[in-house]
Amino acid sequence: MIDTQRLRSDLEELSGIGRLPTGGMSRPAFSPQEKQARRWFIGRLEEAGLEVKVDEAGNITGRLPGPGPAVLSGSHLDTIENGGAFDGALGVLAALECARVIKERNLSCPSPVEVIAFSDEEEAFIGFLGSRALMGQLSDKELEEARNPQGLWLSEAMAECGLDVGAVRRAGRDPSTIKAFVELHIEQGPILAQRGVSVGVVAAIKGNYRYGITLRGRRDHAGVPMKGRRDPLFAALALIEKIRAHGSRIGSEVLMTVGRFTVEPGLENVIPGSVYFSVDFRDENPGVLRSLEGRLFDEIGRLRSESSLEILQQPLLKIDPVPLSPSIQRAIKQAADQLDIDWLSLQSGAGHDAQVIGQFVPTGMIFVPSLGGRSHCPEEHTEWRDIERATEVLLAVILRLAAAD
Amino acid sequence: MIDTQRLRSDLEELSGIGRLPTGGMSRPAFSPQEKQARRWFIGRLEEAGLEVKVDEAGNITGRLPGPGPAVLSGSHLDTIENGGAFDGALGVLAALECARVIKERNLSCPSPVEVIAFSDEEEAFIGFLGSRALMGQLSDKELEEARNPQGLWLSEAMAECGLDVGAVRRAGRDPSTIKAFVELHIEQGPILAQRGVSVGVVAAIKGNYRYGITLRGRRDHAGVPMKGRRDPLFAALALIEKIRAHGSRIGSEVLMTVGRFTVEPGLENVIPGSVYFSVDFRDENPGVLRSLEGRLFDEIGRLRSESSLEILQQPLLKIDPVPLSPSIQRAIKQAADQLDIDWLSLQSGAGHDAQVIGQFVPTGMIFVPSLGGRSHCPEEHTEWRDIERATEVLLAVILRLAAAD
Repeated sequence: MIDTQRLRSDLEELSGIGRLPTGGMSRPAFSPQEKQARRWFIGRLEEAGLEVKVDEAGNITGRLPGPGPAVLSGSHLDTIENGGAFDGALGVLAALECARVIKERNLSCPSPVEVIAFSDEEEAFIGFLGSRALMGQLSDKELEEARNPQGLWLSEAMAECGLDVGAVRRAGRDPSTIKAFVELHIEQGPILAQRGVSVGVVAAIKGNYRYGITLRGRRDHAGVPMKGRRDPLFAALALIEKIRAHGSRIGSEVLMTVGRFTVEPGLENVIPGSVYFSVDFRDENPGVLRSLEGRLFDEIGRLRSESSLEILQQPLLKIDPVPLSPSIQRAIKQAADQLDIDWLSLQSGAGHDAQVIGQFVPTGMIFVPSLGGRSHCPEEHTEWRDIERATEVLLAVILRLAAAD
Repeated sequence: MIDTQRLRSDLEELSGIGRLPTGGMSRPAFSPQEKQARRWFIGRLEEAGLEVKVDEAGNITGRLPGPGPAVLSGSHLDTIENGGAFDGALGVLAALECARVIKERNLSCPSPVEVIAFSDEEEAFIGFLGSRALMGQLSDKELEEARNPQGLWLSEAMAECGLDVGAVRRAGRDPSTIKAFVELHIEQGPILAQRGVSVGVVAAIKGNYRYGITLRGRRDHAGVPMKGRRDPLFAALALIEKIRAHGSRIGSEVLMTVGRFTVEPGLENVIPGSVYFSVDFRDENPGVLRSLEGRLFDEIGRLRSESSLEILQQPLLKIDPVPLSPSIQRAIKQAADQLDIDWLSLQSGAGHDAQVIGQFVPTGMIFVPSLGGRSHCPEEHTEWRDIERATEVLLAVILRLAAAD
């Protein structure tokens, strides 16, 4: 039923906003590019005849009216720097396409349906800002202190988009006004693509604990004896290796990533004065995450007492695993079966707005394959045949949820 | 005999050029600050009545004329970014002070004496550019391709200082016109300061092999399974750890430094696409350096065949240990003994222009203590009592060398 050409042309138009010479997308939250994308999207919602609302957090919704709590579907329009065209955008536009089809064909839909684009999913300022604001999960302090990596304050960036950071918490919405939330998203992993399956039924979103660790030693000339050195770099390497070994021991599927690693002053003939690195753990089992955190803190404590390094540990993220609604998982599987579309149940290693909403509202996720498992890069791609199938499933699920008691 | 107040006031004046708010010095070679330091130094040489010459490589000499080959003494005026006030500058100004005293007091000095400031010792563009040019050790290719870390071409920077990169090789000088070279320098290590000794007699300059290693994997989302990842960061950590373990096994005094470590794209939730790090080895034994190099290349070869990473290895520096002239070492010790100044024989872990000149000309080095062993940082400091003693020794050594057959 859905119009794949129309959906594709929407995605291509949106991809023209913030495209880099690399082919990658840069639409970080509240940037000029993302502002342009917001304007464009509001235009598309209006064109579709939906009731448009922009809340205090900058979340944009387009509503097909109706009585009682709404079925929500969508994702986010922002991207990381030099990211891909599908992450987030596809989920928003697929939801829009479903709403258009429901309206145009006047399909039976007892509940209101809302298409939503959440603000700052990708953590330019605050990860999941929009969905957390909607669920009342942001503090004033966090909002006041937020800056992007370029040092711009969230307040300034929001003001550029006509939004007031002081009002963000007013975006909070009573969860009982939402019947269900369904997010369609690229897998950001290789499983569906490897198996040749178009639809992934997400059983749970892995938890994600993340830390920033700073080790400060003493900047010195590379000619000084090893014995008197206070080299934070070798200590950082040994620390990372210990945590990694612990991770492998407790579970082969524990995800561990060191994505940032910076060295000061970063000169070839100077022993670093300080080192900063991030460490990101993901697992479906909260016990595993707590064990990794415990080991990390223990090893830092040991290093602190055994060395003359100064060590700072900063928790950056602490999200426990979120199981998704069993009944929505069932609805997705049944819809796919009826449409004769292959599906596979899997877990999400990446974080999504669904993990925030899912703590308060029955929530489901539909994954589409990521070519080669790639995402967060210009090469990010999903075949249109898969998108078409998954969007048909999304439409069927929205209608099922709208019809359910 | 030397005038410590005058020497101190020179160093303080020079330290006013390129001083940062941190208290550190930034006078990278051929920068506006270093250009100003050059002008200032030429003024001081002229004021002292020395014959000034600036060669095609930008090396500045001030000559006390005389027959036959010259006794050369000096060091460099350039600094690293946010470095210290003593490294290099002290050796140049101590030599100037000696030449002034010889001239003013009309001391018996049968050979000409030349005070020298070498260009770009600190490798803003090419490490030891000045001393290597003087000894005919630079290639056109190296000169044409040289850029500083900000991407500025050497040709442009030299042109700003009124110098022509195409002429640099004409700075080559017949080593037989140099009778001896003596460089006074801060130790850049803790030994003299710990022992409370004012004068270090350098027996040898440790060899220095340095490499830049790039590991390219695949940028991916931090949520993808560990199994399919091509993560260059963990591979780099393991490689560094293996080389470090090998270094510890073959000798506890092998110096190993990883001073640069950069990660692309450097985002907390993205598996790095590539990693670059530098590794710097220093030892007095060329066999140890070759063993480290061999092990590094073996481990890279193994990693290349066992992983799907692309690995580039770039040699950045390959300087074998340089033993310094035994007769000049003797002259330094005898001069110190006569002046009743404590001395200690040691090795240099840092590289110096003396290691370039020392391959062609009898060369010696006099070290002064570095407070706390610190150098290449704003805290770099040497007590004036130590400087006075060491400069007296330098003067006596210059006179001995000038008088020797």
